Amino acid sequence: MERYKGLFITLEGGDGSGKSTIALRLKEILSLKYDILHTREPGGSKIAEEIRAVILDPENTLMDPKTEALLYAASRRQHLTEKVIPALNDGKIVLCERYVDSSLAYQGYARGLGIDYVKKINEMAIDGYYPDLTLYLKIDPEIGLSRLKSRSGKDRLDQESIAFHYAVFKGYEKLIQEDEKRFKIIDAAKDIDAVVESCLEALRERLDV
Amino acid sequence: MERYKGLFITLEGGDGSGKSTIALRLKEILSLKYDILHTREPGGSKIAEEIRAVILDPENTLMDPKTEALLYAASRRQHLTEKVIPALNDGKIVLCERYVDSSLAYQGYARGLGIDYVKKINEMAIDGYYPDLTLYLKIDPEIGLSRLKSRSGKDRLDQESIAFHYAVFKGYEKLIQEDEKRFKIIDAAKDIDAVVESCLEALRERLDV
Repeated sequence: MERYKGLFITLEGGDGSGKSTIALRLKEILSLKYDILHTREPGGSKIAEEIRAVILDPENTLMDPKTEALLYAASRRQHLTEKVIPALNDGKIVLCERYVDSSLAYQGYARGLGIDYVKKINEMAIDGYYPDLTLYLKIDPEIGLSRLKSRSGKDRLDQESIAFHYAVFKGYEKLIQEDEKRFKIIDAAKDIDAVVESCLEALRERLDV
Repeated sequence: MERYKGLFITLEGGDGSGKSTIALRLKEILSLKYDILHTREPGGSKIAEEIRAVILDPENTLMDPKTEALLYAASRRQHLTEKVIPALNDGKIVLCERYVDSSLAYQGYARGLGIDYVKKINEMAIDGYYPDLTLYLKIDPEIGLSRLKSRSGKDRLDQESIAFHYAVFKGYEKLIQEDEKRFKIIDAAKDIDAVVESCLEALRERLDV
């Protein structure tokens, strides 16, 4: 028994893996046949945005890592209840860039808070609303970062940053091992048309595209 | 084995039970012999204050109750790590107005989120830093509210509000049943000198006052 008529799809992956580009292309294609909500946290929820502003305020250098994890979970909860759940109840396909898995890979694994700790907090926030399907855009972190580099015009890759992004990569691998059925691994090093086609192939289990 | 040299005391009770008045008097007396930090959340932590501002923003009518519980826990965590723990490590007596029990009684019980749910979230935030001792200022909610009424100049007591405050009262009673050793029940209907004396009597188990 499903809780809702819609389908909850998330896009995950490291920085530079192409989530936004792919999401836009998928939205375009899926929109021909389905009602789509394309979103990412905080997703235009005023409250979720205010919470993000506290997290991202560069003056908040004293922020404790667990405070931060609680704030991300609070922002996620608000976006979920204001935007995602109503769309799922309306029968829409929700295509969400990043969700719980990002917190688990980034904060839980790479920042060292522990996947179990961050998962527990998030489970208090999401009421069992795990995605039906997660497209994981897999790419070597150095290739991902080099894409960002050309985008932002920065001319050097910080070594610590590369180590961090490899940890994120490893974090995602751990998550996938534990929940193989939900994740569809997409080779995101290919050109964009090929990546889109791989995503559509993965979606065909559930959708007529 | 204690985790710290100090002593962590909280003051709890419904609205109008006299927490702030009593805390100031206790601080005055305890300061003669001890180093005291008198605080209440958000307690001057810039981050904790920013989080409170999101919770209390009257425009945020769409706030989900679980979002709110996560934000209170985040604010508590930040105040705890910035203010309370350093003071306890310095050997101070921390006298804190309201803490986890307030969230459990107000949001968990009276607002209906469930004591267990709110406790779980808070336990993710406080790392086992439960108070060593909690002074519960027990007072009939109507008497408490009538004190607030004379303070604020309001001239009528809202019926829904009274029902809510009775639920808070009942919530505290449940908490006390489950953790009798930590709570000291103080009859807060008495005059202020008598209430202060009852608090000191309760503190004499741990302190020379």
